[in-house]
Amino acid sequence: MSGIPDQRIFPHATGKAAETVAKHQEPQDLIFHAGWFCPYVQRTWIALEERGIPYQYKEVNPYKKEKHFLDINPKGLVPAIEYQGKALYESLILTEFLEDAYPSTKPNLLPADPYTRAYVRIWIDHINKQIVPNFMRVVQAQEEDKQKAALADFVKGLTTLTEKIKGPYFLGEEFSLVDVAIAPWVVRDYIIRENRGFLREAAGDVWKQYAEKLESRDSVLRTQSNKEHSAEIYGRYLRNEAQSEAAKAIREGRPIP
Amino acid sequence: MSGIPDQRIFPHATGKAAETVAKHQEPQDLIFHAGWFCPYVQRTWIALEERGIPYQYKEVNPYKKEKHFLDINPKGLVPAIEYQGKALYESLILTEFLEDAYPSTKPNLLPADPYTRAYVRIWIDHINKQIVPNFMRVVQAQEEDKQKAALADFVKGLTTLTEKIKGPYFLGEEFSLVDVAIAPWVVRDYIIRENRGFLREAAGDVWKQYAEKLESRDSVLRTQSNKEHSAEIYGRYLRNEAQSEAAKAIREGRPIP
Ligand SMILES: N[C@@H](CCC(=O)N[C@@H](CS)C(=O)NCC(=O)O)C(=O)O
Ligand SMILES: N[C@@H](CCC(=O)N[C@@H](CS)C(=O)NCC(=O)O)C(=O)O
Repeated sequence: MSGIPDQRIFPHATGKAAETVAKHQEPQDLIFHAGWFCPYVQRTWIALEERGIPYQYKEVNPYKKEKHFLDINPKGLVPAIEYQGKALYESLILTEFLEDAYPSTKPNLLPADPYTRAYVRIWIDHINKQIVPNFMRVVQAQEEDKQKAALADFVKGLTTLTEKIKGPYFLGEEFSLVDVAIAPWVVRDYIIRENRGFLREAAGDVWKQYAEKLESRDSVLRTQSNKEHSAEIYGRYLRNEAQSEAAKAIREGRPIP
Repeated sequence: MSGIPDQRIFPHATGKAAETVAKHQEPQDLIFHAGWFCPYVQRTWIALEERGIPYQYKEVNPYKKEKHFLDINPKGLVPAIEYQGKALYESLILTEFLEDAYPSTKPNLLPADPYTRAYVRIWIDHINKQIVPNFMRVVQAQEEDKQKAALADFVKGLTTLTEKIKGPYFLGEEFSLVDVAIAPWVVRDYIIRENRGFLREAAGDVWKQYAEKLESRDSVLRTQSNKEHSAEIYGRYLRNEAQSEAAKAIREGRPIP
């Protein structure tokens, strides 16, 4: 068998996500290059589903770095979008693109008010800097003291966010890009609950309720595959053997690409 | 003398920047909390100057973490903006805020076309992940092999960006947020030219021309202090003694806050 183990991931979505994929096979103006397993993909996918934007789903194994995909995203990462022949990537830039390119497709996930837009972006920035990388550190850390330190940082990142949750969603009744940005890590937190002693309660009751609200949201469920094939992928992360760009960056103390 | 050395920085702008500060003392709807020495501040400042938005400049020493400033930005970092009594921060979120809050104040620095907006954000993301942190690694690295490795990564980051420069500015004739995002590190690259053997030519002639174009732009010059007081600040970075949040993050392999 050739290639790094990450190249041998299960080839397609399962469960509810497979049903969603099946509904999005017809050619459309917008082609969504995705990997069923990827939390960054899920962000963009949730936004597409929330807003009912027509899209064609294409499964990509980004670890294979196939030429036709590198032509779309030279960074070789999913998600990527082809829109009227032009290519774009980066999960959160894509969610903002969907707001800009389909302004009148309701609901919008980025509010119209300039102050609130900036406020949403500040908390997404917090998620990107203080929550996602610490989640990965918790998963990849091997020594117990490093796991504990990373877990403390992760919980602190959650607690700071939680102080601003209006409930039921981050901004209140309105589901927004903040919820989109964090949801994929909420539905994957079982990895660190089962393997690293994380408890949602550690970030407080408000966090726990918010997490439960997010994981039962329709768009989140519809973009979620069964857990069985993820265990294999996360096994490599938990043993710190993963060779993805993100895994290497965390190991070397560089920004996640 | 008490406090970390970073707290004892020279207290105000000098040179052309001091003239600009003097012109922005009157109360306004928008209060700009700034530090004359800070490259992140300069991003937001360039945007304010380019667009002629009325603002009141207030000098802050962010290392002192004074309570009144922490009330505005709990992260304790400059730049921050108070707008109609509400506080916002993060240099690039602020530049986007200025686009959203003053949409008809020309020129806009974020183009109207959805694809181009996403394209601009992709390259700003590249600057944030592959250029700014590598600049800091070049400055802070002490061993020669680490300095060389960081310099190679920095030059690679520049080269990748350079491939997309249309000239004279990133998008062509139009000055945009990509130029704003990188300019403060261009005007500071003398630090690594004088101390770490960086040459602009290493990133190619197109880069060199682009860098010269940026450093002679009016808004860049008008937000620039004399070099003399910066040497002291950068001395601490070059000896890896700086205690700023960013310096610590680079040292520990965490995301820059
Ligand atoms: N910053 C990117 C990260 C995307 C990313 O890391 N995707 C992973 C899969 S979850 C990938 O494509 N990895 C391929 C590789 O690491 O080689 C985003 O937000 O879209
Ligand atoms: N990500 C922030 C970074 C701002 C930042 O690091 N500012 C520095 C000065 S250049 C600061 O306020 N440092 C205070 C500290 O580190 O304690 C932004 O883009 O605005």
